[in-house]
Amino acid sequence: MTASEATNAGLGRVVEPSGVLPQAAWRLDASPEIADDEVLIRVERLNLDAASFRQLAGKHDGDGDAVRAEVLEIVAARGKMHNPVTGSGGMLIGVVEEAGPQSPLGLKAGDRVATLVSLTLTPLRITDGLARWDGRSEQVPAEGTAILFGRSVAAVLPDDLAPELALAVYDVCGAPALTDRVVREYDRPVTVAVLGGAGKSGSLSLAAARLAGARTVAVVVSAKEAEIVRNAATADEVRVADARNPVAVSRAVTEALGGPATITVVCVDVPGCEHGAILATAAGGTVIFFSMATSFPAAALGAEGLAADVTMLIGNGYLPGHAEFAVDVLRRVPAVRRLFEERVAGH
Amino acid sequence: MTASEATNAGLGRVVEPSGVLPQAAWRLDASPEIADDEVLIRVERLNLDAASFRQLAGKHDGDGDAVRAEVLEIVAARGKMHNPVTGSGGMLIGVVEEAGPQSPLGLKAGDRVATLVSLTLTPLRITDGLARWDGRSEQVPAEGTAILFGRSVAAVLPDDLAPELALAVYDVCGAPALTDRVVREYDRPVTVAVLGGAGKSGSLSLAAARLAGARTVAVVVSAKEAEIVRNAATADEVRVADARNPVAVSRAVTEALGGPATITVVCVDVPGCEHGAILATAAGGTVIFFSMATSFPAAALGAEGLAADVTMLIGNGYLPGHAEFAVDVLRRVPAVRRLFEERVAGH
Repeated sequence: MTASEATNAGLGRVVEPSGVLPQAAWRLDASPEIADDEVLIRVERLNLDAASFRQLAGKHDGDGDAVRAEVLEIVAARGKMHNPVTGSGGMLIGVVEEAGPQSPLGLKAGDRVATLVSLTLTPLRITDGLARWDGRSEQVPAEGTAILFGRSVAAVLPDDLAPELALAVYDVCGAPALTDRVVREYDRPVTVAVLGGAGKSGSLSLAAARLAGARTVAVVVSAKEAEIVRNAATADEVRVADARNPVAVSRAVTEALGGPATITVVCVDVPGCEHGAILATAAGGTVIFFSMATSFPAAALGAEGLAADVTMLIGNGYLPGHAEFAVDVLRRVPAVRRLFEERVAGH
Repeated sequence: MTASEATNAGLGRVVEPSGVLPQAAWRLDASPEIADDEVLIRVERLNLDAASFRQLAGKHDGDGDAVRAEVLEIVAARGKMHNPVTGSGGMLIGVVEEAGPQSPLGLKAGDRVATLVSLTLTPLRITDGLARWDGRSEQVPAEGTAILFGRSVAAVLPDDLAPELALAVYDVCGAPALTDRVVREYDRPVTVAVLGGAGKSGSLSLAAARLAGARTVAVVVSAKEAEIVRNAATADEVRVADARNPVAVSRAVTEALGGPATITVVCVDVPGCEHGAILATAAGGTVIFFSMATSFPAAALGAEGLAADVTMLIGNGYLPGHAEFAVDVLRRVPAVRRLFEERVAGH
């Protein structure tokens, strides 16, 4: 790695331990003086990761003042909002204050942006004591500064979407972009099964698959979720099955599509979905794992044990243009937009 | 899935919990009475997975008797040699005792075979108390029986290779086959970095990559390993770096190849190698993770945090023809054969 690549990845911001990347670091330097390839953001709101907020609220029995105090402590101690228990962060919204002359991100002062890299690696300083936050919601109004490295991702917020809606889309925008890419790598006809097809990443992946020309089946956990997908008509077929039951998943997909799927997308955030996904996928097909609950050994050994010639992808949250792609899917498929709007409104 | 597919996958052998596949099961029925599509193997030797053996040896401070006792306990409790800590198993050699009339594997009584599916899903019964094993090596002489399902993989041992040698090759035969496949998907020139290039899967992957037309670099942990690779000339370049240090790995690969690698293959069985592999890989490139120590979240979040447009593959231990492919690489590259022979001989 050249010196400039190291800087791009934010290594200059790592205080301790040295030699690791910012995400793995215990403490970052969050000072607002930027390097030539960095961008300074004036923070407007943090969006805490759901797992992180749940842990903090649980620890303090819902005492908002105590939650706020701990978030301030974490940020002061670590230079980033990196929950040491859950290991997770979240993202933020803010306005570009200053873009270094060598920043490759294409941002300029005044742009209102969402950061698409995790808060676990974003240098952050809070200056208002989070005075406007009651500690009772993942949405944290905040004043302060954050830093984007050269090698980072931020998206300018679109004019036609509420910021909350854009954030919800950006949170899962890698899934539809990668689904689209993989569908286009196969000759037609292509079939796609999405496990967890009623959720945010699932519905965007279904929509992206169909826009790319695939026939789709949503596998969902309950009749209620099946109704959501049917009403939204985001999939060609809908089946109810427990994603952790390989036999049930395989049967549901095979019946719906007339055979195993060319591509199976796992968007169910519970452990144990690897074998069903593998068994539901045709020889020569691909399984894309987007769930953070995926077990690497279960997938690797499961495919081997089933003598399954399937390509298994670790769902990368980044593809060039993924944020714009996901917003475009939302604009083209009003039913998906409605699902997201209802989700953001708390229905 | 039809009823016969369920049987093929060995569901009838799952004791608890029910409804999962054999690999995910806590306990299998290892009784030697076979179904019509099963094969009964008389076991001659187990080959424990390296990570599993290392964990056991470490836990017991190298006390062979204690290691042997724990292996016996695991097999008795689970009906399979599935290390509950590492989640890994290994493979075995044996002789076909009886092939069910509907077995699709093409085996007949008397065939000497190696199982190419993991011990984590192979019903196993040990009858000699592992009396001939000192508990100090991954190679475990054993008497007992094992079961192959309809949907399984076993290879008849080749005449020109010692069984130990064939087993050592089969243990990692998915790695060279998948490396070959991925190299051939890219336009030339292709460069390949193998982290852990001095080991079994690493040296076969290096050889396969070169046979497929790639320029290669082996990244190894010590000067001693570097000398092994240099003497064998299995790679075009050799560099020493700690695979857990992203900056060091990236620098080593970039210097050796004149830029990041098209494909990075991770064969280092220690945690924490994800970020270095991602950082060492070019945009549009592929990382193939063969190490069972790979963390799914570390890979997924790492690539996102680095804004790295890399395809990340979970190394599937099965590809059609993978055993024959690996043996062919061994025959074509005498230096790799010598490395394996020395490894098997315990050097």
